[in-house]
Amino acid sequence: MEFQHSDKALHWQERVRRFLDDKVLPREAEYWAQVREDSTRQPPAMDEMKAQAREAGLWNMFLPGDHGAGLTNLEYAPLAEMMGRHLWTAEVFNCNAPDTGNMEVLHMYGNEAQQAKWLKPLMAGEIRSAFLMTEPEVASSDATNIQTRIERDGDHYVINGRKWWSTNMGHPNVAMTIVMGKTDTGAATHAQQSQIIVPVDTPGFRVERMLSVFGYDEKPIGHAEVVLENVRVPVENLIAGEGRGFEIAQGRLGPGRIHHCMRVIGMAERALELMVQRLLSRTAFRKSLAEHSVWEQRVGEARTNIEMCRLSVLKAAWMIDQAGAKNAKSEIAQIKVAAPRMALQIIDDAIQAHGGAGVSADTPLAEMYAMVRTLRIADGPDEVHNRSIARLEYAKHGGRPVR
Amino acid sequence: MEFQHSDKALHWQERVRRFLDDKVLPREAEYWAQVREDSTRQPPAMDEMKAQAREAGLWNMFLPGDHGAGLTNLEYAPLAEMMGRHLWTAEVFNCNAPDTGNMEVLHMYGNEAQQAKWLKPLMAGEIRSAFLMTEPEVASSDATNIQTRIERDGDHYVINGRKWWSTNMGHPNVAMTIVMGKTDTGAATHAQQSQIIVPVDTPGFRVERMLSVFGYDEKPIGHAEVVLENVRVPVENLIAGEGRGFEIAQGRLGPGRIHHCMRVIGMAERALELMVQRLLSRTAFRKSLAEHSVWEQRVGEARTNIEMCRLSVLKAAWMIDQAGAKNAKSEIAQIKVAAPRMALQIIDDAIQAHGGAGVSADTPLAEMYAMVRTLRIADGPDEVHNRSIARLEYAKHGGRPVR
Amino acid sequence: MEFQHSDKALHWQERVRRFLDDKVLPREAEYWAQVREDSTRQPPAMDEMKAQAREAGLWNMFLPGDHGAGLTNLEYAPLAEMMGRHLWTAEVFNCNAPDTGNMEVLHMYGNEAQQAKWLKPLMAGEIRSAFLMTEPEVASSDATNIQTRIERDGDHYVINGRKWWSTNMGHPNVAMTIVMGKTDTGAATHAQQSQIIVPVDTPGFRVERMLSVFGYDEKPIGHAEVVLENVRVPVENLIAGEGRGFEIAQGRLGPGRIHHCMRVIGMAERALELMVQRLLSRTAFRKSLAEHSVWEQRVGEARTNIEMCRLSVLKAAWMIDQAGAKNAKSEIAQIKVAAPRMALQIIDDAIQAHGGAGVSADTPLAEMYAMVRTLRIADGPDEVHNRSIARLEYAKHGGRPVR
Amino acid sequence: MEFQHSDKALHWQERVRRFLDDKVLPREAEYWAQVREDSTRQPPAMDEMKAQAREAGLWNMFLPGDHGAGLTNLEYAPLAEMMGRHLWTAEVFNCNAPDTGNMEVLHMYGNEAQQAKWLKPLMAGEIRSAFLMTEPEVASSDATNIQTRIERDGDHYVINGRKWWSTNMGHPNVAMTIVMGKTDTGAATHAQQSQIIVPVDTPGFRVERMLSVFGYDEKPIGHAEVVLENVRVPVENLIAGEGRGFEIAQGRLGPGRIHHCMRVIGMAERALELMVQRLLSRTAFRKSLAEHSVWEQRVGEARTNIEMCRLSVLKAAWMIDQAGAKNAKSEIAQIKVAAPRMALQIIDDAIQAHGGAGVSADTPLAEMYAMVRTLRIADGPDEVHNRSIARLEYAKHGGRPVR
Repeated sequence: MEFQHSDKALHWQERVRRFLDDKVLPREAEYWAQVREDSTRQPPAMDEMKAQAREAGLWNMFLPGDHGAGLTNLEYAPLAEMMGRHLWTAEVFNCNAPDTGNMEVLHMYGNEAQQAKWLKPLMAGEIRSAFLMTEPEVASSDATNIQTRIERDGDHYVINGRKWWSTNMGHPNVAMTIVMGKTDTGAATHAQQSQIIVPVDTPGFRVERMLSVFGYDEKPIGHAEVVLENVRVPVENLIAGEGRGFEIAQGRLGPGRIHHCMRVIGMAERALELMVQRLLSRTAFRKSLAEHSVWEQRVGEARTNIEMCRLSVLKAAWMIDQAGAKNAKSEIAQIKVAAPRMALQIIDDAIQAHGGAGVSADTPLAEMYAMVRTLRIADGPDEVHNRSIARLEYAKHGGRPVR
Repeated sequence: MEFQHSDKALHWQERVRRFLDDKVLPREAEYWAQVREDSTRQPPAMDEMKAQAREAGLWNMFLPGDHGAGLTNLEYAPLAEMMGRHLWTAEVFNCNAPDTGNMEVLHMYGNEAQQAKWLKPLMAGEIRSAFLMTEPEVASSDATNIQTRIERDGDHYVINGRKWWSTNMGHPNVAMTIVMGKTDTGAATHAQQSQIIVPVDTPGFRVERMLSVFGYDEKPIGHAEVVLENVRVPVENLIAGEGRGFEIAQGRLGPGRIHHCMRVIGMAERALELMVQRLLSRTAFRKSLAEHSVWEQRVGEARTNIEMCRLSVLKAAWMIDQAGAKNAKSEIAQIKVAAPRMALQIIDDAIQAHGGAGVSADTPLAEMYAMVRTLRIADGPDEVHNRSIARLEYAKHGGRPVR
Repeated sequence: MEFQHSDKALHWQERVRRFLDDKVLPREAEYWAQVREDSTRQPPAMDEMKAQAREAGLWNMFLPGDHGAGLTNLEYAPLAEMMGRHLWTAEVFNCNAPDTGNMEVLHMYGNEAQQAKWLKPLMAGEIRSAFLMTEPEVASSDATNIQTRIERDGDHYVINGRKWWSTNMGHPNVAMTIVMGKTDTGAATHAQQSQIIVPVDTPGFRVERMLSVFGYDEKPIGHAEVVLENVRVPVENLIAGEGRGFEIAQGRLGPGRIHHCMRVIGMAERALELMVQRLLSRTAFRKSLAEHSVWEQRVGEARTNIEMCRLSVLKAAWMIDQAGAKNAKSEIAQIKVAAPRMALQIIDDAIQAHGGAGVSADTPLAEMYAMVRTLRIADGPDEVHNRSIARLEYAKHGGRPVR
Repeated sequence: MEFQHSDKALHWQERVRRFLDDKVLPREAEYWAQVREDSTRQPPAMDEMKAQAREAGLWNMFLPGDHGAGLTNLEYAPLAEMMGRHLWTAEVFNCNAPDTGNMEVLHMYGNEAQQAKWLKPLMAGEIRSAFLMTEPEVASSDATNIQTRIERDGDHYVINGRKWWSTNMGHPNVAMTIVMGKTDTGAATHAQQSQIIVPVDTPGFRVERMLSVFGYDEKPIGHAEVVLENVRVPVENLIAGEGRGFEIAQGRLGPGRIHHCMRVIGMAERALELMVQRLLSRTAFRKSLAEHSVWEQRVGEARTNIEMCRLSVLKAAWMIDQAGAKNAKSEIAQIKVAAPRMALQIIDDAIQAHGGAGVSADTPLAEMYAMVRTLRIADGPDEVHNRSIARLEYAKHGGRPVR
């Protein structure tokens, strides 16, 4: 057991930290000004930063093994944390969700033609993509509820359904989506679903509306409600084979959750910094807020909870590296619940420390809160993950390992 | 001791409920469409509803005694709760903050000329107003921090300062503000401040920018940051006399907090209704969400906490009626902290029950959350109110009654 | 709506307060010394205080209407709160559980002979009694689980079963018990059970062992595990009739829970007093603990939560008076959960404020904690009461009113 | 970074686990029977188990380096966790507090004569010892409050003071104590204190009374209130030198807190096991408690919180090994607060799952709860540790590093 990062990992951390400090964060205002000015095209600043990152070799670091930057999940995790400190910087490194998950899927399950056509431009950062899983009409906490149909018709599949929270659909560069739906409603529960590639310009594919999150439109990314009406795509677009949709979904979620959690820890760390700076700079009742013991308690607990969550995420990453996501099921579920909850508390305390500035746009805190709040719902609500953990505990004592 | 509302109170509740059901809620979509269409003029639907409410005698009910509708705070409280269920309906009855507080101040402390010029059109709903107290540069938790200066110069006062969270400043009808500032920085701590009437068209009075709450702009109301630069108003605009600003502020906050808390209880009640309806209508793992025991616990506690808070607010209202706000200091502080915290938990649970719909604009929940979250900061943060309660407890046991 | 107690209620409060101050609390050390000296006989001090209380008319005040002291539940509640401040004083007034519940049952459901034989000496404070409901082998959260059998055999019923948490079984004066068991396991779910009187000296009735609560034996009261082995009692001992056991149990629990909750509020109030006194008297880091803002927050919230719970208990008492326990089902369940939870938090904070003194016998806090902790389990765990509240909410929106 | 224990560590874990399973746990009933029978002598079973453990080389494993068993803190931590599962087993391995801390002090600061006379028999398990620091009259949260005086008088020191929570003072084998007191009240704040060896049979050294914890007397260990009245010990008994008491106290607390926290994690793990077994074996409302989703949430969170705390403790142990306790100040404070809080929640949930059995002596849960509750107070209350963590955070941002 050893809690020090390897020299290699420390080296990558240093590179990413320096790149962020030198090339990215100084352009924050410029980037947002370009977004506000015209959110229908990719902000030029982003394209420039992406080119620089790619040239610097800080590119696709999320993808384990040689196809990415040759990093393990454990080595990548601290990099994700750094990118998470600001809501917009992961894209610079081509490490933003849900493109990362889609690239992983195509990398692991896509055939050569699919990889040539879609994985290549995704890994080059030329296009962006969405993952269409959640549906407005059913409880997404139970994946078997999915209603979208993918029906074979000769050389094509015909897709009908309604999806929402399709992240990236507002992005100027979005080109393709991976859609989850049922190919065989008569099959065994977890063999009914398939995943299929659907380009966004396919007839019948329609963005119904963009969704807001606590008042934020999250431009230029955006979350959409999408209707698929008799959308026809060639059979070659099916990923891996009929009935493997559930398996693919499970596979993508392991590392993806690690990434989310690490970014969340970056956000919590930044919220704590902002809180401490505020507490040190404001005075009430003849002493700095920092000296009021109620804030000492909150700051103490914030530090403790960040450290505990970070270790847990690192351990889960290490387990995925060692034994695969399947064998880290409990650990992944644990951090999926724990990290956002931890961050929400710290961000909320930081808001309170800032007073009115905390709920406004003068600090990033309110938007962070909104963003992290969605993570208690996305990829399965807390309740379902706690259920999974509990079932694994029950199984240790002879409990029926119900799914 | 008697927990049943009086016949009179029940009668008023019935009238307001019916008016809301018949005349107001059916026009919700129309109202918002008008706001979206042009937020720079008062939506015609609002004017029509206001006229109807006034004609029906459902007008200015917040103002105790004969100058309003002849209701006590206790009788008014359930009406405020009903108005609070929707974020926009209090204005229909001319019962919206901060106009209510400004009317109270002018009613209690204004002289005849001030009442004729400003109270009359406010009570007629012809203009709207703002209250400029909080400042961006200092901790508003300690009122003695205020930096705005109100300096006598012959027949005028000259005002310099920067205020924010000036609610109503985005409203098309806003005409006047009441500004809190220091007339004498050498006086005893609580005699330094004064309140003065400043029309929004006075030279040097400038809206610097509008603020957002989480991602909401809260049009058409709006919260502004306001700069006052050598703003000159005649000495007649001073309210009550130099040095009485703190006293006036204290007075306005008692009933005002009751109103806020009752509205918050209305929101919590509505969030609980939405949550229950959702739980009954969604299925996961082969049973309705309502049957999952974790939701039974949350619903049970939601009902309990709403009931406890409602009783406490009613008792505080009753105490103000019986003995004045000064003698209800602890009770008012108690609900100021307890009601928003209770509501935030219930709204958050309701969001969780709704999944993605909860954080989006498909339900009012996320906006409710944002709005209630500000109440843990506005009019003094939780920490300061708990401090006040604690000091009163300490005093019972010989503790020094530090302010 | 009126939050002031009636003159009559205030008068009774004054009488009980004065009696406690003058006749009871000064004898606390004497009473406990007698218990320690010989816990197998009734401490003489208790008998003397009981005689005084009875003479003063402060006797059986819990029993509504003319058979007691002529008080309503609402009038009695504040008296129970005062008695609850110390764990041992309710007996002085013949107002201690579970005798109170047993008296109520005999009063409402007992026939004349049962009342003459058992209710009379109970109301005279000459004997004490136990209620045998909970069983060690099954989850008591679901009353239908009960396994004890009450079988008719000619002119007798034969009882077999095992009960525990039979409070009072350690008391020197305990003479009779009321036993809950099934007379007909084939009947409808809630018609299977009956209640029957069993004197403690009946052959086959055996105290297996005394139970501790945390490390407390709670002498002289005591909680027992009791075995009933072919216990034969005459058919006249059956209360109300076969199959009415569940109905009787429901009836007893309404007011009984009010009593428990009021006593718990008395305990919380006392814990807050002890906490404040401690905070004012100790110094750390150059100021009194009271001045540390973390304690201000805790004290502020303690006061708030006590007030909210007290109002809720008073309202529930009022509802029972007005409309019967059946119509106050949600309100009773609400306080059953809320009051102990509130008190545990305050007692725990008070323990923390006292340091080592808090967990030891130097303060009553640790024993209070242990006692109140049992109330989250006794008479149905929190989870079952929240379930009941939730089901009532669901029913408002068309949810199936499952029991 | 590597989350797998070393082979050496795993080997030791296996040895201790097997020894506990084979030689210790089977004798639990026998041990307690001997304690109950006569708590004034060392239970023979304990002496036999100690001899076996020593022979097996499972002895003094807590002491880092060659003087103990050659283990690091990181290697020892999982062994402490195993010992912590039962409240009484650490003594078998001579690894019980406060003897461990006293041995560390004598090992690091004692001179040769002190080590020969006291460290040797302690390490042989022949005697036991106490540490006399906390005082009843002052807030122990602020160590500068200590009132005990250690005054030089020729070749002796004369000690006067009152101590409490002196653990081990009830043990039949207790022979010596280390006493903290002030030798120079005029010196700089942290140079006023000294530590000195006081044999329990020194004239003037008196056990005033034994203290209980939530009703438990914790025999045979016991916590005492001790009076020192003109206690004279030779100057050779002073440890390290006048004025070094604070430094010694700080040194002992680092590893000691790790040990406590690991034992607490063992308790939490055992409470979770008991909870799960109970949930699987009880039925309510036609399904096992385990299937009620509220319990899924609690079990899920219990597992998550145990894992997070365990990692944090292991990391703190690793930091002490790498860089010394001084450089792990924040990490040690973090787990000192987090581990007991985590365990209390899980034990409390386990109590709730067990109903009446949970609060009684039928499970170890209530006693565990009492024991862990004291850890939120002992060695500095939570509030002081959070204060330390916060001050370290403040210092990162230029905050004054106030002690």
